Amino acid sequence: MDDDHLMERPLQQQQVYRGHFLDVRRDTVSLPDGDTAGREYIVHPGAVMIVPILDDGRLVLERQCRYPLGRVLLEFPAGKLDPGESRWDCAQRELAEETGYRATEWALAAYLHNAPAYSNEFIEIWFARGLQRGERKLDRGEFLDVCEMGEAELDSLASRGELTDAKTLIALMWLQKWRSGQWPLAWRATHARPPSA
Amino acid sequence: MDDDHLMERPLQQQQVYRGHFLDVRRDTVSLPDGDTAGREYIVHPGAVMIVPILDDGRLVLERQCRYPLGRVLLEFPAGKLDPGESRWDCAQRELAEETGYRATEWALAAYLHNAPAYSNEFIEIWFARGLQRGERKLDRGEFLDVCEMGEAELDSLASRGELTDAKTLIALMWLQKWRSGQWPLAWRATHARPPSA
Repeated sequence: MDDDHLMERPLQQQQVYRGHFLDVRRDTVSLPDGDTAGREYIVHPGAVMIVPILDDGRLVLERQCRYPLGRVLLEFPAGKLDPGESRWDCAQRELAEETGYRATEWALAAYLHNAPAYSNEFIEIWFARGLQRGERKLDRGEFLDVCEMGEAELDSLASRGELTDAKTLIALMWLQKWRSGQWPLAWRATHARPPSA
Repeated sequence: MDDDHLMERPLQQQQVYRGHFLDVRRDTVSLPDGDTAGREYIVHPGAVMIVPILDDGRLVLERQCRYPLGRVLLEFPAGKLDPGESRWDCAQRELAEETGYRATEWALAAYLHNAPAYSNEFIEIWFARGLQRGERKLDRGEFLDVCEMGEAELDSLASRGELTDAKTLIALMWLQKWRSGQWPLAWRATHARPPSA
């Protein structure tokens, strides 16, 4: 599709804040009508979220404090990409670190933009099955509860407005679409499994 | 549920950048184990998104440039709350300004957190029907195409990974859940309609 009449183009770029986590930019852009405007946004490395499916069909989720909201949210495990890390590697690392689980099969489901007005963050959603429990290794300053939940319970929370995390809602949608046979997933075996037995 | 063992509490708050649009904070917080850490985040007024349903069942969407991504996204109409504005008023205003449509019936569907790691933004999703076309009034510097699309086409885009806007994906999920009778919506008539006929 021809998007030329909608595109905004950078004229000048500036980093206005560089914290431990946030990289904030303010660019001057040219608008489609030739006028100029300022655009402020976060530069983000991207993230992955994992939908871990236990052998009995239940799901592994987390409860953790989201400080900007001042409350605890229920979410699927997720984390940011490390520099140079592939998305699949990141998915395996985050699942193991946060929950202790390792998976034998993986499938890439969705690719999201969660705050396109002011962040270049993307989130890839991976499904994981063939789960084997191990030790988790949380980062310093990371506190979270791991919990297991069925699809019906998650659906009920969502319908009542009690599941508010956007990426987790989209993962639930994908799970239901996949299980009903509407949206297929292509499963692949974990490449670098440690030898066992 | 008792979340005390997960909560992070503010010790010191600081505004580190205040732009035209972004309000960036860096707080020092106390962690559940008594240690301290820094937390950087965006303070956001909150937003609403509208799912406008035409009398023939098709949906009204927009295509607009999302500068941080350097590309055009397909999304339902949305916008930020003005100071003191109610969410329903915001939904009516944004629908009219961006698409020209006014609706006679509204229903509140979902409440989302789209970037809980670094923003306090919430998004309320409203459904709108009984649409009447009028003039749109875009803000200065706002360029967007309005388009109409059926649910099946949107579903197909989502299944192929071509619909990446998180809030729009969740709206599609809600639409399908509502139409299949699984998740009910409570419709209410627009309070302040201009007299007609």
